[in-house]
Amino acid sequence: MATRSLERLIDQFNRLPGIGRKTAARLAFHVLDMGEDEVEDFIVALKDAKQVIKRCPKCGDFCENELCDICADLERDRHTICVVEDSRDIVSFEKMGKYRGLYHVLNGKIAPLNGITPDKLNIKSLLERVASDDIDEVILALNPDLEGETTALYINKLLKPFGIKITKIASGIPIGGNIEFADSATISKALDGRQEL
Amino acid sequence: MATRSLERLIDQFNRLPGIGRKTAARLAFHVLDMGEDEVEDFIVALKDAKQVIKRCPKCGDFCENELCDICADLERDRHTICVVEDSRDIVSFEKMGKYRGLYHVLNGKIAPLNGITPDKLNIKSLLERVASDDIDEVILALNPDLEGETTALYINKLLKPFGIKITKIASGIPIGGNIEFADSATISKALDGRQEL
Repeated sequence: MATRSLERLIDQFNRLPGIGRKTAARLAFHVLDMGEDEVEDFIVALKDAKQVIKRCPKCGDFCENELCDICADLERDRHTICVVEDSRDIVSFEKMGKYRGLYHVLNGKIAPLNGITPDKLNIKSLLERVASDDIDEVILALNPDLEGETTALYINKLLKPFGIKITKIASGIPIGGNIEFADSATISKALDGRQEL
Repeated sequence: MATRSLERLIDQFNRLPGIGRKTAARLAFHVLDMGEDEVEDFIVALKDAKQVIKRCPKCGDFCENELCDICADLERDRHTICVVEDSRDIVSFEKMGKYRGLYHVLNGKIAPLNGITPDKLNIKSLLERVASDDIDEVILALNPDLEGETTALYINKLLKPFGIKITKIASGIPIGGNIEFADSATISKALDGRQEL
């Protein structure tokens, strides 16, 4: 039978996205079967993730040092910025491996109905980067849905005065799909087919 | 991009049963979005589950006190023991609500090929309970598969000398199930277990 501590643990798992009551119970029972040090490792990983991981002041991606690994990497093409909605999208781009430029994480997309107005996004620092760093091209890699398109148009308007190349990845990504879960070949196609706005 | 701490957290989620790499990444990224105190609550729940939850010395179920809630409940029928493989099975029985007796958790079933011999199961304490407590009936509620049947036969042989009633829950077509789609083994069990109306 579920004791009170067990119920609390089930509740905690149940709060995670996509974890229903039954899965939560299965995970909680599994924790009881785990060794002391296994649970300890899990706890340390959770703690570290919250304490050590910060946002890179340059691109807004997760980082553990002063700058994220990509912004600090002098080997990368420092004249191109790829703008994404979410850190997860960078994981997919890096897995593809073909892109050698920098990134910029917006941390969402414009969605006024959900209260996400442009000022809630990491857009201001993008303008600062374009103004101060030697940027030739900004690639907009937003999810091809209504909010993504809106956000792309909005950023395009703000960047136009800088006179740099602004491109958008092609809709090789299926409409309604999600960059995070796209395979490398699809992302590669989308990158190749980028067109000037 | 995934930092090292983030990778470690993804690994930890990935180790949980039924959590693949992609789900693990989704959960880890969610943790980064959680508030400090939400993560703290999660950590406390994990810690408590390991530290506070013990096995009931009587029935082998999870408990937080000297005895589990059911063994400590004097209102229950203390002359009947229902033997189950796993604590999770008790949750299902209690949800049904009709059973008012006690339980005994074996913590598995005999499976020599997986190295689970009878001595690895919580069987000895069942014999002690039957010998010392005033038990009238032992109900065997093991899953109706090869190992479950083997375990039921084994326990039946050990309990026979005590001269008490030993029963096994019925196998058959599940309520709401469909004979058309039931497998032969299930139909055969249902036919064998037919009862006069």
